[in-house]
Amino acid sequence: MGQDLLGVLFGDPFAVMNTIGLLAFALVGSSKAIREEFDLLGITVVGLAMAFAGGATRDLLVTRVPLALQSPIEIALGLLGVGLAIALSVVLTAPDTHPITLVADAIGLAAFTTTGAIVATDAGVSAFGVVAIATINAVGGGAFADILLDRSPFILFDDFYASCAVLGGSTYFLAGVVGVTGSTAAGLCAAVTVLTRLAAVTRDWNLPTVQGLGLVEQ
Amino acid sequence: MGQDLLGVLFGDPFAVMNTIGLLAFALVGSSKAIREEFDLLGITVVGLAMAFAGGATRDLLVTRVPLALQSPIEIALGLLGVGLAIALSVVLTAPDTHPITLVADAIGLAAFTTTGAIVATDAGVSAFGVVAIATINAVGGGAFADILLDRSPFILFDDFYASCAVLGGSTYFLAGVVGVTGSTAAGLCAAVTVLTRLAAVTRDWNLPTVQGLGLVEQ
Amino acid sequence: MGQDLLGVLFGDPFAVMNTIGLLAFALVGSSKAIREEFDLLGITVVGLAMAFAGGATRDLLVTRVPLALQSPIEIALGLLGVGLAIALSVVLTAPDTHPITLVADAIGLAAFTTTGAIVATDAGVSAFGVVAIATINAVGGGAFADILLDRSPFILFDDFYASCAVLGGSTYFLAGVVGVTGSTAAGLCAAVTVLTRLAAVTRDWNLPTVQGLGLVEQ
Repeated sequence: MGQDLLGVLFGDPFAVMNTIGLLAFALVGSSKAIREEFDLLGITVVGLAMAFAGGATRDLLVTRVPLALQSPIEIALGLLGVGLAIALSVVLTAPDTHPITLVADAIGLAAFTTTGAIVATDAGVSAFGVVAIATINAVGGGAFADILLDRSPFILFDDFYASCAVLGGSTYFLAGVVGVTGSTAAGLCAAVTVLTRLAAVTRDWNLPTVQGLGLVEQ
Repeated sequence: MGQDLLGVLFGDPFAVMNTIGLLAFALVGSSKAIREEFDLLGITVVGLAMAFAGGATRDLLVTRVPLALQSPIEIALGLLGVGLAIALSVVLTAPDTHPITLVADAIGLAAFTTTGAIVATDAGVSAFGVVAIATINAVGGGAFADILLDRSPFILFDDFYASCAVLGGSTYFLAGVVGVTGSTAAGLCAAVTVLTRLAAVTRDWNLPTVQGLGLVEQ
Repeated sequence: MGQDLLGVLFGDPFAVMNTIGLLAFALVGSSKAIREEFDLLGITVVGLAMAFAGGATRDLLVTRVPLALQSPIEIALGLLGVGLAIALSVVLTAPDTHPITLVADAIGLAAFTTTGAIVATDAGVSAFGVVAIATINAVGGGAFADILLDRSPFILFDDFYASCAVLGGSTYFLAGVVGVTGSTAAGLCAAVTVLTRLAAVTRDWNLPTVQGLGLVEQ
């Protein structure tokens, strides 16, 4: 992680993105659990599951003990996000569909796409491995939270959601190919992910289906 | 694992708790599958999945090959639990909701909370890591069985069920902090878990929701 | 991997079976996603998930980084299977229930039972471990695809499907016990799996339930 401009401003890009992602996803997961009238343990479990499941899966895929189980700071950040969600639920109606939560979700998606791309690149996997691990890191938490909430996680793939992580992870890999690394690559990855996600939400983007392309008779 | 009182009586606390947990959870899982009229392979798969999935996830989290895949004794114990469930189904109506099964489930929960706490402590993870791995070891099997049975696993978090494992795992960690280890700590962990679970079942305990605390307007 | 007859004809049995399995399962997974009118990313994700999830779980269980994340050839084969599914969907009605897809599914099941048995045997796990990892390798992809498609994976255990992998994995283990290894053992394992699966489909095989055995009063 070189001393490029963003590196000087922000220090270690993994730590920055990981902190943002944990806070944002714990907030989003807990907000969903509050809406479903889960009890306080349930709210905490769903919030922490959304914050940690993607990163834990990433760590298992590169065969290391999940960071969340080793570092007390990680869990403190997750619990802070849970607390924020409870505080928000007191002042807002329907916090899980409020613009604050939608933006937090897009920010968490971008932050965890970036942490996944960083860890995968350091682990020396293939180009597909980098994009796959970035996407799993970004989408895994939401998918696991959806299972706990008894929703289908497939909306994450049907909607233009996982696509943003694929684009962000690909950006990080391609940046590395042309020699852009460290905080600049991390910033590019996060920016592409968050901007495509916000555009998808506000403009109702969708990828075409085989049926929509006119390839299959209805 | 010192030669304290329970150690002399029971030997290695991990082996004792693991044996109890495998038998109890294989019995409970198979009973549920029998009720759903699964075929004999399905009954065996659900029973073994409930017995082994939590421990396998625990082993993956501390990056070791799951014990269940290495030791022939483990699978023999699981199959014995499956056989017990089939035998029980012949003599009992609705074995999956019979008091025997509810008590077996509470005992399995307590036994696997303890094995999880022991393995996590030996692996040197953080306080949160010990409680998280104890809870995952205890609840993972039931959650996986529920997915195979096409039920939502979220009841495990909505009900006062995972909470008992959190309390038991915390007890084990706190016991270690004050110098209580080995079989005594294991016995304390199992006792807290099984007693809170049985109290929750008989007294219909629930944790409050944010709505129930009056923090959110309905 | 000795130079027995099939070894001379087919080279490394793992590579042969892995190639067949990736192509077949990517085709089957994508065909299901096309039927559900998933978008192009969704079709690709479900196809690749079906092709890679079983093998990735197998690799995690023997604690190594999943092959799919390391080898660019793996992902190319998966994408080729996805492309085949899209091509098939243009020329066939209901490609996901067409005989071509049912046969491809049986072939993929057999190929991945074999890769699982080979990797598990090389990892030195117990007899149960070999059969369990062979079955997880074979059934894991379909189960994960079903979760993404919002179907219950339990049909895989209710139907005579996972049973074929159990029979194939047992064949591979028993072949090793009597001294038959390498390509011959791989061929036997694949043949038992694919033939029992095709027989189960065409003859509507089912295992008995406890209720069906007359052990439980209805």
